[in-house]
Amino acid sequence: MAVAYELRCRDCGKRFKNDPLSSCDECFSPLEVVYDMDAAKRTFTRESIAGGPASMWRYQSLLPVPEDYAAPTPAGWTPLLEAPRLAKRIGAKNLFIKNDAVCLPTLSFKDRVVSVALANAKIFGFDTVGCSSTGNLANAVAAQAVRMGFKTYILVPADLEPAKILNTQVYGATLVRVEGNYDHVNRLSSQIAERFHWGFVNVNLRPYYAEGSKTVGYEIAEQLGWRLPDNVVVPMAGGSLITKIRKAFKELVELGLVAEKQVRFFGAQATGCSPISTAVKAGSDIIEPQRPNTIARSLAIGNPADGPYAARAIRDSGGWAEDVSDVEIVSAIQELAETEGVFTETAGGVTTAVTARLYAHGRISPDDVTVSCITGNGLKTTDALAGKYEAERTIRPRMADFEEFVAQHEVRGIVVDDMVSGELVGGEYVR
Amino acid sequence: MAVAYELRCRDCGKRFKNDPLSSCDECFSPLEVVYDMDAAKRTFTRESIAGGPASMWRYQSLLPVPEDYAAPTPAGWTPLLEAPRLAKRIGAKNLFIKNDAVCLPTLSFKDRVVSVALANAKIFGFDTVGCSSTGNLANAVAAQAVRMGFKTYILVPADLEPAKILNTQVYGATLVRVEGNYDHVNRLSSQIAERFHWGFVNVNLRPYYAEGSKTVGYEIAEQLGWRLPDNVVVPMAGGSLITKIRKAFKELVELGLVAEKQVRFFGAQATGCSPISTAVKAGSDIIEPQRPNTIARSLAIGNPADGPYAARAIRDSGGWAEDVSDVEIVSAIQELAETEGVFTETAGGVTTAVTARLYAHGRISPDDVTVSCITGNGLKTTDALAGKYEAERTIRPRMADFEEFVAQHEVRGIVVDDMVSGELVGGEYVR
Ligand SMILES: Cc1ncc(COP(=O)(O)O)c(C=O)c1O
Ligand SMILES: Cc1ncc(COP(=O)(O)O)c(C=O)c1O
Ligand SMILES: [Zn+2]
Ligand SMILES: [Zn+2]
Repeated sequence: MAVAYELRCRDCGKRFKNDPLSSCDECFSPLEVVYDMDAAKRTFTRESIAGGPASMWRYQSLLPVPEDYAAPTPAGWTPLLEAPRLAKRIGAKNLFIKNDAVCLPTLSFKDRVVSVALANAKIFGFDTVGCSSTGNLANAVAAQAVRMGFKTYILVPADLEPAKILNTQVYGATLVRVEGNYDHVNRLSSQIAERFHWGFVNVNLRPYYAEGSKTVGYEIAEQLGWRLPDNVVVPMAGGSLITKIRKAFKELVELGLVAEKQVRFFGAQATGCSPISTAVKAGSDIIEPQRPNTIARSLAIGNPADGPYAARAIRDSGGWAEDVSDVEIVSAIQELAETEGVFTETAGGVTTAVTARLYAHGRISPDDVTVSCITGNGLKTTDALAGKYEAERTIRPRMADFEEFVAQHEVRGIVVDDMVSGELVGGEYVR
Repeated sequence: MAVAYELRCRDCGKRFKNDPLSSCDECFSPLEVVYDMDAAKRTFTRESIAGGPASMWRYQSLLPVPEDYAAPTPAGWTPLLEAPRLAKRIGAKNLFIKNDAVCLPTLSFKDRVVSVALANAKIFGFDTVGCSSTGNLANAVAAQAVRMGFKTYILVPADLEPAKILNTQVYGATLVRVEGNYDHVNRLSSQIAERFHWGFVNVNLRPYYAEGSKTVGYEIAEQLGWRLPDNVVVPMAGGSLITKIRKAFKELVELGLVAEKQVRFFGAQATGCSPISTAVKAGSDIIEPQRPNTIARSLAIGNPADGPYAARAIRDSGGWAEDVSDVEIVSAIQELAETEGVFTETAGGVTTAVTARLYAHGRISPDDVTVSCITGNGLKTTDALAGKYEAERTIRPRMADFEEFVAQHEVRGIVVDDMVSGELVGGEYVR
């Protein structure tokens, strides 16, 4: 039994049939996908989901693809990890990490949105696809397009991290480096999609694309044993992910898969690009665009498309938003790796540092069940840690050399532990 | 019902109770784990496995851990991908990729061996663990040790790739860079494990460690619908993985989970470090140690511990071994990414180039079902591609600039496609 879906304007509610469209022709607001929820009640059950594949496609009947769609690349179904050691350091108790640092196939949550968007690019008959990207989306589109036979054009700000550039080019995608920041890139992409009739995943395929993010929310609920957490901490760039996790939870409640609960949403940004957290702190839905200046380049969107919706979702849920400095981001990357064995990129440093701040400021109570969303892999932003580890002197392959190394290391280790290991002072990581 | 296990000498058959031991006190041959296969017949069934987790721990009853062991970090259960586009380029038909480039948690198959080894390090009561490593093992030990509360010492050759060094240090492991090649490092590690009473995963925990590699074989068989392939192509460093995939297939046959079949094993090395393939080509089991000189550093073991067993396994199976140049390795990395959307490290370039060679030389017949084992992620060896992609000139965020870019790109694209895209000449990739 297929679950029918179509597009609807998020503000005026006008309906549209499925087409490569992103905004309403009446009020210019963004469109989103809506489903026949009566049909979904029959097909989207705990049992049907448990019988599905170990990928995001276990939720296929509430994703905008045909019933018999067979995805060419597995994506999603990432671990929800208990994080007791990080919890202890930041004054938490029931802390979990949703670990999309290891999301298949390209190691960020963007693989989820791209899987859904490219399925629709096929349906609509595009032969060329693309995106404007702060990096992770570029990687996901480039890799997944290969297995689907698309030609690919990808536009990025010229100063992207080397690993993200290579991880786009290696798949044979055409990479276009644009002078300017993401907002310039994005504006140009909108014009290109229209002019060339290409399927740009975050432009004319955006409503479908955004549905992919819901699977983060579905997975969190299922992995908690079909219950909702008290709080979720989510990094924000365009502001789409956070609104879609919320949509996922609402759908699960509506379908009776989880008990209703007020989940509070917390948004995380870098101070160097914090248009959404700034609005939230000011109690407003109006986003003042910023000119980004932060090492968290994947989050460096100064004029976020879903910013107002993200700010409203946070406020309506009783949550909050915070932003952290580049120094805190780097320390938090190290802290997460040292405590939980998870190596994340700068965006995950943002989320981790914000999570710590929220506990420190009493915005999250220690006993709450809290999920911190880690969304990308540390191997993509190795530059952020440049100079953080002195090149240890080498030793000769002799026991005497090793014993001397150990002796020095243990002595220094004690001092180092006392002096500079991660410590939380007034809600900020200090090393 | 637990399946009992103990250690047995691979050559003289002497039995040993479970202890941190790696070689026989009578004949000095390596020990391996053996199981009570009668008990296994009852617990290790297709149904029990299908009901297990989406990780390598679905095979727990044939791994050397207690029945109720709960792994702190998910690992394994990676995709088996159809590879029709790569197949077409190299003259294959039924080609599959076992994609451990995305193995959790640290993106190489070494996560599998480390999961089993560290479980045993806990059982034996070690508080400090370590390894000698060509890189991937270092990453896996460092990350997984964190979640188990071990102190960690890791020894590597001084010239390891920067990403592999960072991806060890970031977890707080103590990294010791040793002047010399892996064989020097390994010798020192053996002395250290004994002197300090530490649990070195590939030294005194080696028999347990090696069992982790079996799960690659179990997964291949299960993902093919509980049947064995005709051929498997496996990269070789110490030579352990290839022998353990063979052991996995034998166990599955013995337990009646798959039909018996002569699976041919093909070993892959870099020409710059090819002690095992050299022996195989010479029709010998005697390994002449080499001094490694190749960009495939993860495979750069000149004196492989399991070399003779690997050579014998290959010969007994009716397979073969090949080795490829550094230039071919780099081209094959690009080829695999461009055809199948999989970005692998140098070791995967070795496997891919060797696979192509085997088809070109008629050693594998096109109709055979062949699995090529990709064992590590491309983000770990980005240096291997340095200079391969010219920095495209940037454009201003204007439609006119983009149109000019496209026009130039399409013209150049035609020329480029004819002149330098991957082509197979006499069994060697030429670009
Ligand atoms: C790693 C990472 N996390 C989070 C985000 C934020 O997603 P959104 O744009 O949906 O807010 C991005 C966006 O690029 C990202 O790359
Ligand atoms: C990526 C990769 N593939 C393959 C191997 C070979 O494994 P083995 O030493 O078991 O032959 C290694 C060993 O380090 C490796 O790192
Ligand atoms: Zn409208
Ligand atoms: Zn013996």
